[in-house]
Amino acid sequence: MVLRVGVVGGGQLARMMIPAAVNLGIEIRVLAEAEGMSAALAARSVGDYRDLATVAAFAADVDVITFDHEHVPQAVLRALTSSGVAVHPGPEALQFAQDKLRMRERLAALGTPQPDWAAVTNEAELQVFLDAHGGRGVVKMPRGGYDGKGVRIVSGAAEAADWFAAVAGDPAGNALLVEELVDFRRELAQLVARRPSGEVGHWPVVETVQIDGVCAEVFAPAPKASARLLEVAGEIGDAIVSGLGVTGVMAVELFETSDDRLLVNELAMRPHNSGHWTQDGAVTSQFEQHLRAVLDLPLGDAGATAPWTVMMNILGGPSEGPLDARYVSAMSAVPHAKIHNYGKDPRPGRKVGHINVTGEVLDDVTYDAREAAAAFQD
Amino acid sequence: MVLRVGVVGGGQLARMMIPAAVNLGIEIRVLAEAEGMSAALAARSVGDYRDLATVAAFAADVDVITFDHEHVPQAVLRALTSSGVAVHPGPEALQFAQDKLRMRERLAALGTPQPDWAAVTNEAELQVFLDAHGGRGVVKMPRGGYDGKGVRIVSGAAEAADWFAAVAGDPAGNALLVEELVDFRRELAQLVARRPSGEVGHWPVVETVQIDGVCAEVFAPAPKASARLLEVAGEIGDAIVSGLGVTGVMAVELFETSDDRLLVNELAMRPHNSGHWTQDGAVTSQFEQHLRAVLDLPLGDAGATAPWTVMMNILGGPSEGPLDARYVSAMSAVPHAKIHNYGKDPRPGRKVGHINVTGEVLDDVTYDAREAAAAFQD
Repeated sequence: MVLRVGVVGGGQLARMMIPAAVNLGIEIRVLAEAEGMSAALAARSVGDYRDLATVAAFAADVDVITFDHEHVPQAVLRALTSSGVAVHPGPEALQFAQDKLRMRERLAALGTPQPDWAAVTNEAELQVFLDAHGGRGVVKMPRGGYDGKGVRIVSGAAEAADWFAAVAGDPAGNALLVEELVDFRRELAQLVARRPSGEVGHWPVVETVQIDGVCAEVFAPAPKASARLLEVAGEIGDAIVSGLGVTGVMAVELFETSDDRLLVNELAMRPHNSGHWTQDGAVTSQFEQHLRAVLDLPLGDAGATAPWTVMMNILGGPSEGPLDARYVSAMSAVPHAKIHNYGKDPRPGRKVGHINVTGEVLDDVTYDAREAAAAFQD
Repeated sequence: MVLRVGVVGGGQLARMMIPAAVNLGIEIRVLAEAEGMSAALAARSVGDYRDLATVAAFAADVDVITFDHEHVPQAVLRALTSSGVAVHPGPEALQFAQDKLRMRERLAALGTPQPDWAAVTNEAELQVFLDAHGGRGVVKMPRGGYDGKGVRIVSGAAEAADWFAAVAGDPAGNALLVEELVDFRRELAQLVARRPSGEVGHWPVVETVQIDGVCAEVFAPAPKASARLLEVAGEIGDAIVSGLGVTGVMAVELFETSDDRLLVNELAMRPHNSGHWTQDGAVTSQFEQHLRAVLDLPLGDAGATAPWTVMMNILGGPSEGPLDARYVSAMSAVPHAKIHNYGKDPRPGRKVGHINVTGEVLDDVTYDAREAAAAFQD
């Protein structure tokens, strides 16, 4: 008997579970959306993850179902668990990743620090919130957004008119989420894992730098992080992953405010871009930890292996040719850069890979990571 | 265009190239000996590596052919290169791994330090060598041995009578190799890589502990290694890999004598058990380096990421059940142990996996690695 994990979704997160599965002798099977996707090497099926029959057939031959993304519908998830399939994270937890309003409500009930927020169903309600928060706010579609999509900064309620229209009559709810525009010093991310039997473990908190709403750079651990910051961020991660009953890896995106508070921005219930540094900078990568967690195996050591790790996304890639056409220059420039290539065609703004560099001196590590990443950009 | 590497042989060395290939976006295709082998995830073909038509068909769709083992016949290798296939390491180099007499002759010509040796074609010649070396010696079959097979310590020429009979009339040569029994303090291994365009890079020399002729434990770097030892071992590795024209990763097994000399014991022209520590203890693993080298890409940094890495083989495995049935105990006992499971059925003496542990204090690292490995033995 070999342990078998089924991953719904064939993107780069599923792809990056493959090395960890190979090392641990875990059979990984992927249900991909199409042929030739990033995780094609492990693709056993191609089909629609919204179709119960497709997902149920895929689930029949594995020990546990987990995910490359959070988009599998609740009805499919609940039908699977009802029929006895182990699904991690499960539908009860995933609903909080799938609906940002439910997430805010639940975090409020847990007492988690978060920005001021409100559920608003019309422009008048939104304007009241904006007026109470300096005239501006962040409006979010509760469902379906990612990487900055479905998020809009507004300075008047009329700017969200089209989104009110879009959710009007939605059986899942006709409210939008509005949040205060937080005066933050920087963005952090706390990566944490939990197994079904309850064990929780977190990595050191990292700083993330977003460009146009997309994660571009990660510094691990967060520079100038005090012992208190590391502790508080870890506690927030542990409390959320346990409070929401998440199984597997979860990322908590945080604002560090100019008055030294940590507020929860977003949650991702899967391995996350902010955790890619763990592949080369932590004893246990987020991908290995996710596999261990969803199989309810003891969690691995989440400590860092080097004083600093810097992760740089390769966004878009070369204007012509594949990533590997730049390998000679990138590898010559920085022989210690770890290149992660998702096997996707370069396209403006697309995440096609990333670079990890580890070392003793943050400035040097950052310089080297940027130099290696730059070899893949025009 | 994605880089494509074809690996002949479906064992654990091919398997462990998969994670490196996935990370680098290299398409890896394996020609396996049978279904369900260790590298089955990447198996595109199943067939006999001794059959030219089979190997040539497999080679047609890849950029370079490389190997999980050194057993592909010279005739097949030379036919491939004649037809324009890139083969790394090539037949000229591989002949020295396939025939230990040729290896000794070539190393002698290079001036490499090695044990006294002779080619002997009958018992009388062998006895002359033994008499000149204290009455004992190590007799080796020049071709076909590995992991201690084909190696015999003798104290009289008659003890090799059956082997003389076995090679009599062999068109590849009717001589046996005899070597002096070296008075060694310990065994070391120097791992090195070379790309076709000439670049060479070596890892720090390691100490290997053999049990019954099989590698059991590796300590990286070799404990109490002086700067001079590290330098000399590296120079020996560099000189051999260049002198023999090896492309890809090569391991040089060395004796450290009680009078502080280094003598070459064996060569392996492929990733090697003595280099498994690099998966978790070096910036660039031997598997990534091998892929880079055979594709003639710039070599990665071969430095260590931690003061110490200890590798323990899992030999045989549990008397009942698969390796993963022991994961709960092994992972609980040592959360920082890196488990490598080759997906092979446990069988007495068989290499079914290994453990890597890194850390600051050698005694602690050794203890932890042994504890984790012990969880897989009865």
